[in-house]
Amino acid sequence: MEKNYLIKIAYDGSGFSGWQKQPDKRTVQGVLEEAIGFFTGQDIRLNGTSRTDAGVHALGQCASFRGDFSIPPENLLKAVNSRLSGGRAKRSTVGDVKLLSIEEVDPGFHARFDCAGKTYRYVIDNGPEEDIFRRNYTGRVAEPLDVGLMREAAAYMTGTHDFKAFQSSGGEERETTVRTVSGVTVERQGTDVIIQVTGDGFLYNMVRIMTGTLIEAGLGRRTPGSVKDVIDSLDRANAGPTAPASGLYLKEIYFQEK
Amino acid sequence: MEKNYLIKIAYDGSGFSGWQKQPDKRTVQGVLEEAIGFFTGQDIRLNGTSRTDAGVHALGQCASFRGDFSIPPENLLKAVNSRLSGGRAKRSTVGDVKLLSIEEVDPGFHARFDCAGKTYRYVIDNGPEEDIFRRNYTGRVAEPLDVGLMREAAAYMTGTHDFKAFQSSGGEERETTVRTVSGVTVERQGTDVIIQVTGDGFLYNMVRIMTGTLIEAGLGRRTPGSVKDVIDSLDRANAGPTAPASGLYLKEIYFQEK
Repeated sequence: MEKNYLIKIAYDGSGFSGWQKQPDKRTVQGVLEEAIGFFTGQDIRLNGTSRTDAGVHALGQCASFRGDFSIPPENLLKAVNSRLSGGRAKRSTVGDVKLLSIEEVDPGFHARFDCAGKTYRYVIDNGPEEDIFRRNYTGRVAEPLDVGLMREAAAYMTGTHDFKAFQSSGGEERETTVRTVSGVTVERQGTDVIIQVTGDGFLYNMVRIMTGTLIEAGLGRRTPGSVKDVIDSLDRANAGPTAPASGLYLKEIYFQEK
Repeated sequence: MEKNYLIKIAYDGSGFSGWQKQPDKRTVQGVLEEAIGFFTGQDIRLNGTSRTDAGVHALGQCASFRGDFSIPPENLLKAVNSRLSGGRAKRSTVGDVKLLSIEEVDPGFHARFDCAGKTYRYVIDNGPEEDIFRRNYTGRVAEPLDVGLMREAAAYMTGTHDFKAFQSSGGEERETTVRTVSGVTVERQGTDVIIQVTGDGFLYNMVRIMTGTLIEAGLGRRTPGSVKDVIDSLDRANAGPTAPASGLYLKEIYFQEK
């Protein structure tokens, strides 16, 4: 009998053309569907919660899929991870995606439509010298950031707003651009500055544009209060630049029910 | 007039087929010779201190080269780094090598033959869960390592010994396999275990075999005292396995004179 499963996934996005399957490209969805299909003998179709862009990482992406197979889920998890890790071979893309958990869920559950909220993390390398070993894992800002100013600016982003000004073109059509951001934190950790944003949903590139705008505030190039004007303007041109994909991590996903 | 230059270099080895230039392969020497040649208009031939293997990183590799060019060295450094970094493009190999310094040196200086010593660092990811984001930057050991036992074993490696047992086949012929290791340190940093080895010279794969042997000691699979027997045996079969390239960093190089 066909059952419904929810998986949680971590990946290093630097070797992927994003989540969503595309012909002739290495995508997270494509790699996972192949690996799960290998052990279940079925054509697997993953419904991912977030269609992360090329270069964006995940600490806790989720996806649901249906299947009628005999391998116990806990064995499937181990088998898929063994296949994906390939024992630390020389190729730098081996081992860059990993299943963290698998569980059976209600037949009607859908990882995308039942998502109630997400947390994203953005890591800025703000040290005096760029760390070349982390160039694919951070966004780089060479000038010192004022975390206090960034926090003041972030406060204007919290709450329920029309975030149209924080949306790139090119994403799929949405019914509304109103979203509730329940929290934005900005912390300095060593030479890094870490931004975390939690909300009920995010528009295309929203976290990266929020980050680009907070960076401008942290560099004194805009006042924290200007963030309110940006939101009110509903105009993308007034917000900051889109911060690079390399610093962004999909950290956690919250569901209404499973 | 032709002058002689010494450069210091950092690189992330995960996207390179090692230091040494090879046809149709991306190597650190090849990439640097191209970039320096671009701005000097000359055929550049770098003499690197160490021919690091594929996947091995450098925090302070050195190389010397001769040239008769007009661009001031400090401008060459900036220009080369700008060309190599390419502004954080999407390709994950952009920005994985960087010039740290350039200086004019005595006409007779040679970065390889005038090397008086080196320090290597080996980073072991010893946490309970593998960190997929550091798979190309660490060696992974899942079982907890006993740093005290590793230090006891390391003490037997210090000094002047015939290190023939710690040499892989495949390296170039050497006059002698006697080397002086002036220090081996083993430190726990969070969930990492860091080994640092300083010596006057190293045989092919010597640091990685020393590391593999220290790991066996740290797991209780061999006694610290067995290291003395391994050295005395002069037999590679008695030492531990060659630890993966991904954890190894050429940290610093010392010269007799410049």
